[in-house]
Amino acid sequence: MTATGDPGTGSWLKIPQDSEFGLDNLPYGIFRIGQASGVCVAVGDQVLDLSGILEQEMFASSSLNAFLAAGPRAWRETRAEVTDVLTDVRHLDRATPHLYARDAVEMRLPFEVGDFVDFYSFRRHAENLGRMFRPGEPPLPENWLHLPVGYHGRSGTVVVSGTPIVRPNGQRQLVESSAPSFGPTKRLDLEAEIGFVVGVSSTPGIAVATAEFHEHVFGALLVNDWSARDIQAWEYRPLGPFLGKSFATSISPWVVPLAALGGAIAPAPTQDPEPVSYLRVAEPRGLDIRMEVALNGHVISRPQVRDMYWSPAQQLAHLTVNGAHIRTGDLFASGTVSGADRQTWGSLIELARNGADPVRLANGETRTYLEDGDRVVIRAWAPGPSGSRIGFGEVEGTVHSAITASSSG
Amino acid sequence: MTATGDPGTGSWLKIPQDSEFGLDNLPYGIFRIGQASGVCVAVGDQVLDLSGILEQEMFASSSLNAFLAAGPRAWRETRAEVTDVLTDVRHLDRATPHLYARDAVEMRLPFEVGDFVDFYSFRRHAENLGRMFRPGEPPLPENWLHLPVGYHGRSGTVVVSGTPIVRPNGQRQLVESSAPSFGPTKRLDLEAEIGFVVGVSSTPGIAVATAEFHEHVFGALLVNDWSARDIQAWEYRPLGPFLGKSFATSISPWVVPLAALGGAIAPAPTQDPEPVSYLRVAEPRGLDIRMEVALNGHVISRPQVRDMYWSPAQQLAHLTVNGAHIRTGDLFASGTVSGADRQTWGSLIELARNGADPVRLANGETRTYLEDGDRVVIRAWAPGPSGSRIGFGEVEGTVHSAITASSSG
Repeated sequence: MTATGDPGTGSWLKIPQDSEFGLDNLPYGIFRIGQASGVCVAVGDQVLDLSGILEQEMFASSSLNAFLAAGPRAWRETRAEVTDVLTDVRHLDRATPHLYARDAVEMRLPFEVGDFVDFYSFRRHAENLGRMFRPGEPPLPENWLHLPVGYHGRSGTVVVSGTPIVRPNGQRQLVESSAPSFGPTKRLDLEAEIGFVVGVSSTPGIAVATAEFHEHVFGALLVNDWSARDIQAWEYRPLGPFLGKSFATSISPWVVPLAALGGAIAPAPTQDPEPVSYLRVAEPRGLDIRMEVALNGHVISRPQVRDMYWSPAQQLAHLTVNGAHIRTGDLFASGTVSGADRQTWGSLIELARNGADPVRLANGETRTYLEDGDRVVIRAWAPGPSGSRIGFGEVEGTVHSAITASSSG
Repeated sequence: MTATGDPGTGSWLKIPQDSEFGLDNLPYGIFRIGQASGVCVAVGDQVLDLSGILEQEMFASSSLNAFLAAGPRAWRETRAEVTDVLTDVRHLDRATPHLYARDAVEMRLPFEVGDFVDFYSFRRHAENLGRMFRPGEPPLPENWLHLPVGYHGRSGTVVVSGTPIVRPNGQRQLVESSAPSFGPTKRLDLEAEIGFVVGVSSTPGIAVATAEFHEHVFGALLVNDWSARDIQAWEYRPLGPFLGKSFATSISPWVVPLAALGGAIAPAPTQDPEPVSYLRVAEPRGLDIRMEVALNGHVISRPQVRDMYWSPAQQLAHLTVNGAHIRTGDLFASGTVSGADRQTWGSLIELARNGADPVRLANGETRTYLEDGDRVVIRAWAPGPSGSRIGFGEVEGTVHSAITASSSG
């Protein structure tokens, strides 16, 4: 591993000028290569094994949880130390043995997920889905403008990018008002979302105010909330989505610290009516994060997180206002990122209008829902402080055919 | 601690003849007294500290998880060893120092909860709630007779019996079609449920057949799924209950092993239409567990688990049929236990018909919903092999007034 100083990036390490993993980013993850594993930071085309350069035990771990729990001061100090190691050439000799090529390491699930909550905070997505799932009713539920609608998902089936997605079996009603049949979903979908991970637990019984967001939340990551629309449509009344979602939720291996997202703060949609007091925030509350959804290598959508109606600080305030506490590793996701224009819609059910208007890929193929073998990649970046890009990397999943186990048939 | 042999119970230990914690039961929990703590078994009026009499590390633990993960053979062997210790007087001297009075020890949360799923498997409860939440629609949702409706709850707020229940704040719509207001729930309710805890994890992607239930599930316990009906009614469309439930779910400290429930197997309601194949089971699939709900010492209901339409084996098969795996410590609950007769309904919203017909306590007081200071105790027992009772102990919670934090106001 050689390092040729590169003054343009401020590091003694060679970082490509257009890298989305420059010194302004420094996202965290869990890597493994051969016998080496632990907490690492992405920088340029490499990863830096923190367990090799920092003494604390929390970096010699198979999850970020101990680091997440350490809190804002430890997060700041670590970020400063890593920046120092990568910029001061005196650290070159001791750091170099702990650098690995990013494309050579295996990235693992970055943290043990506590509770997983999925919100529904993009107005256009809620309206699009409302029209398709509840035709004849107002597309936006009556409560939607008053609170961030959300529900608990399954934390045990949150998987890291690259994990195969096996087409789920389940009950679905193929013909309206008829008896359901059992089999592989015919309407497998993706949902492009942004997620947030809790570092510092809160006190049971005490709500977390919107202004306390940064004291608890460490960073952001990409989420693909895979959805079986036919299973979901049949099961979701009255208690919400269950097996239509619980088979798998993919997350990106890199957690981008909030400290790297200062340049992404942006205006968000106006909130009318004004939210009740516990949901009010000082403006601006938006995040300029630009996503890209690719199906078999063809970009099919470019969702924008700035269209988010309820901000993550509002989501966190809401989910704790009843006294529920949050724990290290809790994950909460935004809901599908969809804006006004069709090219920003973050799911196939929206893009293909529930099958009526198939998505055309650049190679001439069309899709209403995902087929076996399809490969979905969601990427994102946010503007950095100096024209740079803060990359989220990607969350990838390839669809495998359903298992037809005799025990479940 | 003295032990006077008692041939009537088969133990050298004095076990009251009418004890619900006889040698046929032997439920597991986590105790603490002074410096002593670990896995224990309830027997008579005492608890036996297993870390003191069995060598394995899994008993010197602050949770049952390691023991749960050890699997059916270890469960059988441990039960046999504990029975041997308590029946063979040669063990008296070594066991006696590890016995504590049951009412002197503090019982802790018995296991670390993985995912928490709450089902809705009592037909009368679903119909009762359907009439109240969705007047004008058929009381039973179209899917209800085809699958065990369920949803994910918040595992981080599962608490052990005795934990104070703080009245939650939240949004609720006090007048229909008006803007919501924020404040303490006015409709705090209880839900009497039976829960099941997973011991052995399953393989991701592979469904667990109904016949494999005993290979994965260790035992049963009591659940009080506290509910804020006004918060729930306002928030639950379209993604299901969230803050109306997530503030607290209380569980009993004792986990009764399935091995103790052989005498409780009973017929269950006929399933018509016949379920699809993965939900079929060999009869009988019911459990004769008799519950009792007491409010401030007055019994207000006697729910019966034998009225359960979808059995726990069917629930488990359903929740894994899409490939979702289960993990040690996963908890799934039955839904509110309610049968045909009003005196068996397991929630206040049903008993008091949504406030229209208040429940009258034996002391002359009435209740529509819970008031601050109210104490709810749910108990249960099942028939044992020889006319004995297999007790579940109790799950207790007392309502404390809401916190009016300025940070959330």
